[in-house]
Amino acid sequence: MRESIQTDSTTKYTQLTKGRDGDRSRLALRGGFGTAIGAMQPEDFMREAIRLASAGVQGGRGGPFGCVVVRRGEVVGRGANCVTSTNDPTAHAEVVAIREACTRLGTFQLSDCELYASCEPCPMCLAAIYWARIPTVYYGNDRRDAAAHGFDDDFIYRQIPLAPGQRAIAMKPLLQDEARESLDLWTAKADKVRY
Amino acid sequence: MRESIQTDSTTKYTQLTKGRDGDRSRLALRGGFGTAIGAMQPEDFMREAIRLASAGVQGGRGGPFGCVVVRRGEVVGRGANCVTSTNDPTAHAEVVAIREACTRLGTFQLSDCELYASCEPCPMCLAAIYWARIPTVYYGNDRRDAAAHGFDDDFIYRQIPLAPGQRAIAMKPLLQDEARESLDLWTAKADKVRY
Repeated sequence: MRESIQTDSTTKYTQLTKGRDGDRSRLALRGGFGTAIGAMQPEDFMREAIRLASAGVQGGRGGPFGCVVVRRGEVVGRGANCVTSTNDPTAHAEVVAIREACTRLGTFQLSDCELYASCEPCPMCLAAIYWARIPTVYYGNDRRDAAAHGFDDDFIYRQIPLAPGQRAIAMKPLLQDEARESLDLWTAKADKVRY
Repeated sequence: MRESIQTDSTTKYTQLTKGRDGDRSRLALRGGFGTAIGAMQPEDFMREAIRLASAGVQGGRGGPFGCVVVRRGEVVGRGANCVTSTNDPTAHAEVVAIREACTRLGTFQLSDCELYASCEPCPMCLAAIYWARIPTVYYGNDRRDAAAHGFDDDFIYRQIPLAPGQRAIAMKPLLQDEARESLDLWTAKADKVRY
């Protein structure tokens, strides 16, 4: 079991996310679940993410964003934005693809995977990528392209680093002393599973 | 239908998140789904979030974090961290509670709701709160309390504002010109549902 993220050291994060065979870029034909067609290149996976994005728009599922998660040359998770069609504001392409990959692989850490997103991830998806311990992300459009088409993730990017009291959202501390009970229970728990 | 987040203006965000009756703090006994027991106060909802956090630890479901989403004095969504028990790195308490509230209310925007989290939200959950258009957040523990118990969300908080090339995650642009196709489809789509 890997440790929780507990440091700002790039070295430590890299250690946390090391794949089992240390070779995440190897792309090869594989059997089993996922999709592997010949020796696929990063461009092939990105084109699949773009295809999912465009198909999502055409099918009315949500915003123009697609994503695939790849493990050792196999697609193990796919996602397209389906916020509006599923009434789920967290159903961004990356989150959908990460959830699918984790379900398939039976794990909550994708440290031996790469993620291909048709657009630079928003802060929610970027943080999800950190929590999933994905070490490598390829992205097509960047946040400026997205902003030019009506998606200003950059607003949220600028809000995140602000102190809680300075944000557009009202954020109010409440019952801090009582809340510590839950953290103390965690610290005292002998058989906890860290993440 | 509300517009996408398209500005860094606090005023605009506040406009986007205005509730239907402009009074989000009114707490009253209500029927229907959700839970309303007398005239509940913010402290009552926070205690429910803390209860969910502690129960999640005791039940081995995941980390020590709980959350409730409240609409006009009713609990409309509950969540406890269940990352490790469901193999879902995005299953933080806030995400679980937001998804439940949206499913119950049949919407992808919770602009007339408040969120109570037993701990200051991590960047993923904070961004999810922005996407859900929740205007008010109460939190118990803060990120320093969490760090003292092994959860350093602050590492991710410090990563988010960095340029993509400076992060602990390798982030590589790829096929930007091809990816723009999806965004152009979105812009040209006449019947799109914005979020």
